[in-house]
Amino acid sequence: VLRVGVGAQVRCGVIDESVGTGTVLEVLPEAVLLQYSASTEFVSARPAIDLLLALPRPKVMKRLWAQLAALGVRRIIVSAAWKVERPYFDSHVLEPLFVGARLREGLSQAGDIYLPAVSVHRQFKVLVEDDLDDLSNARCRLVLDPAGNESLASISLSNASDGILAAVGPEGGWTPYELDLLSAHGFERVRINDRTLRSDTACVATLAILACRTDRVPMRGG
Amino acid sequence: VLRVGVGAQVRCGVIDESVGTGTVLEVLPEAVLLQYSASTEFVSARPAIDLLLALPRPKVMKRLWAQLAALGVRRIIVSAAWKVERPYFDSHVLEPLFVGARLREGLSQAGDIYLPAVSVHRQFKVLVEDDLDDLSNARCRLVLDPAGNESLASISLSNASDGILAAVGPEGGWTPYELDLLSAHGFERVRINDRTLRSDTACVATLAILACRTDRVPMRGG
Repeated sequence: VLRVGVGAQVRCGVIDESVGTGTVLEVLPEAVLLQYSASTEFVSARPAIDLLLALPRPKVMKRLWAQLAALGVRRIIVSAAWKVERPYFDSHVLEPLFVGARLREGLSQAGDIYLPAVSVHRQFKVLVEDDLDDLSNARCRLVLDPAGNESLASISLSNASDGILAAVGPEGGWTPYELDLLSAHGFERVRINDRTLRSDTACVATLAILACRTDRVPMRGG
Repeated sequence: VLRVGVGAQVRCGVIDESVGTGTVLEVLPEAVLLQYSASTEFVSARPAIDLLLALPRPKVMKRLWAQLAALGVRRIIVSAAWKVERPYFDSHVLEPLFVGARLREGLSQAGDIYLPAVSVHRQFKVLVEDDLDDLSNARCRLVLDPAGNESLASISLSNASDGILAAVGPEGGWTPYELDLLSAHGFERVRINDRTLRSDTACVATLAILACRTDRVPMRGG
């Protein structure tokens, strides 16, 4: 893929460990043998954003994994919702091997090494009432909703020291029941702007805004 | 598409004019006859963000039009760049009929009526030196670059009263020459975070952050 020869150096990393440099020792038909040397250079902090995502259409979900990993997310909680069609849960785009490959593609694009944790939940109520506290310890909980009064760009993130849990609804939005249940479990309603966005656009927008707002300026040479 | 019958009311709008309600008068095989009534309800302001976009791969550009229109953008300036492959400019994804259809799809999704202006430029230097001032009157000019020292979430937008012109580079980034040329024409280097993002992710992220930062809270009933 990288079109390199023996002796070349490539940037690489070990999942959950380090980034570094690989020196090409041998190019085989199906693989490249590298000598890996971990670097002491700045590694982005593990992102502290958890995403609760009402499962979009498989075609959309398929493209979304790599984008989510590239933007940086700690955990992806895939959920049912009233407006999520049941057969979506049987799609190959939720199979662990498929998901892992697409997530690694996104990490590799972004030069990141932290693989997001992924879980899939077919019952929204059970997820929110019973499982969510174990999945995410973020006290700052936000639900995206075009009718939210607060803007994601300006809402206070002062309670975000344990990270942020953001919930993005299905195409067509959350139902009032779902919004009430989320609200009863500490989710505050925020909007990106007053537009209804497709759920992949809303996810990328949400993670980008939060990444940008919680990003620290890294130390750089030169 | 909407599965409606005679007498039903649907939300609709007239490009660059108004949003309103259509009452279904007749359902024909290929069309629906509506009686349109413009509403006096709040219409989002025309977005004041211009995007200078180094043309991505056709497959990526194809999906991007609707997302850009949904997020809201005043003008899309598609540009060549050193790392943009020339044949991309001959792709059908730049044909006006195709572009218009995808932009209207995005507007319709977002409930918006303002069609972005689109222009295509095959010479980066000519664009930046000769044409850009006529295309965008935004004095706030930003170029996205993962090595930028300022964050898009925190940079001052105090000179953004005429809107914002944001430049998103090709896969692989701008060259130093291109960054220097942009810089000489008033573009400030900003980053989303310290990751390299795919250009469609970077576009959506950029528009979302800017939309969110410049959004005013609309008046709402209830």
